[in-house]
Amino acid sequence: MYAVVPAGGSGTRLWPLSRAADPKFLHDLAGDGRTLIQATYARLTPLAGPGRTFVVTGTAHAAAVARQLPDLPAGHLLVEPAPRDSAPAIGLAATLIARRDPAAVMGSFAADHVVRDEAAFLASVQAAADAAEQGYLVTVGIAPTRPETGYGYLRRGDPLPGGTAYLAEFTEKPSRGLAERYLATGQYLWNASMFVWRVDVFLDELQRHQPALHAGLARIAHAWGSPEQDEILGEAWPALPKLSVDYAVMEGAAARGRVATVPGDFGWHDVGDWDTLGAILPAAPDGNVLLGPAGSHLAIDTRDTLVASGSGRVVATLGISGLVVIDTDDAVLVCRRDRAQDVRQLVEMLRADGRAALL
Amino acid sequence: MYAVVPAGGSGTRLWPLSRAADPKFLHDLAGDGRTLIQATYARLTPLAGPGRTFVVTGTAHAAAVARQLPDLPAGHLLVEPAPRDSAPAIGLAATLIARRDPAAVMGSFAADHVVRDEAAFLASVQAAADAAEQGYLVTVGIAPTRPETGYGYLRRGDPLPGGTAYLAEFTEKPSRGLAERYLATGQYLWNASMFVWRVDVFLDELQRHQPALHAGLARIAHAWGSPEQDEILGEAWPALPKLSVDYAVMEGAAARGRVATVPGDFGWHDVGDWDTLGAILPAAPDGNVLLGPAGSHLAIDTRDTLVASGSGRVVATLGISGLVVIDTDDAVLVCRRDRAQDVRQLVEMLRADGRAALL
Repeated sequence: MYAVVPAGGSGTRLWPLSRAADPKFLHDLAGDGRTLIQATYARLTPLAGPGRTFVVTGTAHAAAVARQLPDLPAGHLLVEPAPRDSAPAIGLAATLIARRDPAAVMGSFAADHVVRDEAAFLASVQAAADAAEQGYLVTVGIAPTRPETGYGYLRRGDPLPGGTAYLAEFTEKPSRGLAERYLATGQYLWNASMFVWRVDVFLDELQRHQPALHAGLARIAHAWGSPEQDEILGEAWPALPKLSVDYAVMEGAAARGRVATVPGDFGWHDVGDWDTLGAILPAAPDGNVLLGPAGSHLAIDTRDTLVASGSGRVVATLGISGLVVIDTDDAVLVCRRDRAQDVRQLVEMLRADGRAALL
Repeated sequence: MYAVVPAGGSGTRLWPLSRAADPKFLHDLAGDGRTLIQATYARLTPLAGPGRTFVVTGTAHAAAVARQLPDLPAGHLLVEPAPRDSAPAIGLAATLIARRDPAAVMGSFAADHVVRDEAAFLASVQAAADAAEQGYLVTVGIAPTRPETGYGYLRRGDPLPGGTAYLAEFTEKPSRGLAERYLATGQYLWNASMFVWRVDVFLDELQRHQPALHAGLARIAHAWGSPEQDEILGEAWPALPKLSVDYAVMEGAAARGRVATVPGDFGWHDVGDWDTLGAILPAAPDGNVLLGPAGSHLAIDTRDTLVASGSGRVVATLGISGLVVIDTDDAVLVCRRDRAQDVRQLVEMLRADGRAALL
């Protein structure tokens, strides 16, 4: 099996730690001594190993990714000349894998997710690989734990032979009421954009639904490894359509009955905002969570507060609860936890004010 | 008239801005481009001028005070070899002034207070000087604006001839109920330790109530300006009793009917803690107060919050109210405003943990 890790997105809701130039996958947000991309890479080692893992990232992050993943062969770090969303990124990896091994199974897993139960994760991916061998585009769907309105959902249909995978349909992000009904039925899974497929099956669907993208990627792949690789990539890439793989391929393939899902329940988190991160990390009895060196939080009468000390400063709190306090070298954030989704508005304000150094 | 400015105390409730090595009088807490001691010095210039002003401070702050007050003659910066509270500090200044001008009137005003109405302040001090000429130890008492339990009070007695000064008694810090009664009577004033007296009258009272202190100061003054000044000061000073001037002299003198008070109403604040400072400084319509460069506070849905940005970083706040957020180079404080008095507990924790660099 091959593994592909798209490493993109800046994680604006995790400002001021996550920045455009230093996005969340480059940070140790799980507090386990590894950055999110390092943890993702390690998690995939039993499936693929360095020789069969590809990471796709932007020009701004290539150097940092290369240093954080010293085992990754240099040629397996695919650098996008410009951001084009996930369909070109994952499509390029699939196209290059297909040149080596046309019927290979590959799995694609975002660089910035947290998985608590790695054994359960590997078992789900193995079940997905089995369904992929049967010719399905397979998603690993997350068993929902709350009526989340921020994700798209997969509706589980009839089971495939073997009983661990099901036919699947995609749904849009639901309203609160609809999300509650989804949760109650037990038939809906979160779409976490974890994909497993045979590259030939995926490329066939890509050609059917996005012929221009398929042709552009084929042209790039043809030049790959030749002296013209950079020139062709630089010329063809910006002309590729900017599309997510869900929209570009999966929805159309699902309508044709070509998409399956394997339910996964392995402590998955997308670490979307500070409140979510506070819920993931281990808390002290008073509900406080510290992301930073021991001794960097000094507290009196402080509860349910997440403190991230990233600058070496001490953060002292007194008489507060339900806040996040994020300390970095050039910015401090103090935010009520239930407003953590709105941190992106602060980033928009900084952008509007032209304060690029803080973005 | 002579002016004396005791510049001591570390202001632990204003941590992390105020430190033992960098106390509050060295900071621009009023946000007017001057430190508190610079503003105090400027306020006294119409009364005394550089040639008749003395500043008394500790060894750790002598250099900073000398640089912040470049007009002060070098010999007018009196450096205490060790902290001995206010009676030795003010007593030394009085003794040295008496050598030059035995019947001089001097006023003593702390380095870390804020006065909003300087004309009214000068008028009160002039009235106090008139009473001092009559032979009283005069305090400028502050007309109370709330039932404060953190200050001692002066009870106003019979008026002196002229009608602007009154005989006065000292009282301890009251309970809440007593403070409310004090406020209701209109007869009580806050003791802000602003003193005006003829140095001969003060030194007579000092000799009566604290003969050892008086003798020690006389010995130091005798050597002042001689080659032995440093040696005698270093030898005699540590043996002086550690006493406040209120306790050492004023209470006893008041019992003898030698203390008068002039009520003052000139926008006085002692800037004791962050909540008080937030109430002094001009607020935006949302109740927020910024102590720092324009643009250093980025706010969404933030009310009644004091932000002090002292490190050049941006402080972003979202969905909070009634907090103080203090940003310095090595520490960040997030504190509920109504707990601002307890910031000293954080400083005690740091001291107990041996984290001297943060004190």
